[in-house]
Amino acid sequence: MPITFEPIGTIYTSFKTKDGMPIQSNGAKGLEGQIIVKDEFIPGLTDLDGFSHILLIYHFHKSIGFELQPIPFLDDKKRGVFATRAPKRPNSIGISVVRLLRIEKNILYIENVDMLDETPLLDIKPYIPDFDMHITEKNGWIENKTDKLNKSKSDRRFE
Amino acid sequence: MPITFEPIGTIYTSFKTKDGMPIQSNGAKGLEGQIIVKDEFIPGLTDLDGFSHILLIYHFHKSIGFELQPIPFLDDKKRGVFATRAPKRPNSIGISVVRLLRIEKNILYIENVDMLDETPLLDIKPYIPDFDMHITEKNGWIENKTDKLNKSKSDRRFE
Repeated sequence: MPITFEPIGTIYTSFKTKDGMPIQSNGAKGLEGQIIVKDEFIPGLTDLDGFSHILLIYHFHKSIGFELQPIPFLDDKKRGVFATRAPKRPNSIGISVVRLLRIEKNILYIENVDMLDETPLLDIKPYIPDFDMHITEKNGWIENKTDKLNKSKSDRRFE
Repeated sequence: MPITFEPIGTIYTSFKTKDGMPIQSNGAKGLEGQIIVKDEFIPGLTDLDGFSHILLIYHFHKSIGFELQPIPFLDDKKRGVFATRAPKRPNSIGISVVRLLRIEKNILYIENVDMLDETPLLDIKPYIPDFDMHITEKNGWIENKTDKLNKSKSDRRFE
């Protein structure tokens, strides 16, 4: 039973290809982008400018097909795809939390972008610490590997 | 340009209707559920049991249509839908972070479930604090309202 979505807008960034792109928004500090939301959804943006951080759900539109056990960017071993944030997934859905700088009509100016230019945007939600921050006890294979985040950039492995 | 996804599995919970359902996983502590992942994706679950918390992306399958300015559960004023976590959205995509108790073959036993029974699951990602925890400066209309979370339950307003 397929589920069909229509983009609510498009995310524009300076990343035309995956080479050198940050692999998470925490590795993309200060990198600016814009979202252009379709005019019909402008009333849905009301109140959003009260939030400093927003959660974007989008389509990894350049990820064709998937691997069930890819080698993720921060590791050198194959891992189950659902234990990774790799873009080539059975459903190529990405999420990123970015900083919202300001909204002008249907244009959102954002910071900490880690997605490709012209990424189709599916949803925007406010990032709410009381909902979205969770204390974990186990961080699996990535424990102690995220300190490489600022040095790690995307490459062509998921093309 | 529509984007089509096929569920990778189904989430089973004790919530047959929206009445009385928790409105966020942080308001659902201890409530257990199961995910049954389609057999073909079992290799993709490798390594996932190393993580105590997982992020689920799913379809709000009982949300038909949307309102651009609903009154959210924790408020009494209309708000732009993208500034809320309301289920009736232009693309009815939900996200929840749940605790992963254990995996048996293609069954994931989870806790802190805040979704309806038989929810179609689109993706599983590991919850990684270094990627997913963000310090906010502004929490918009919901500031000081989340303390009602444990007392607030879903109702029929989004039917």
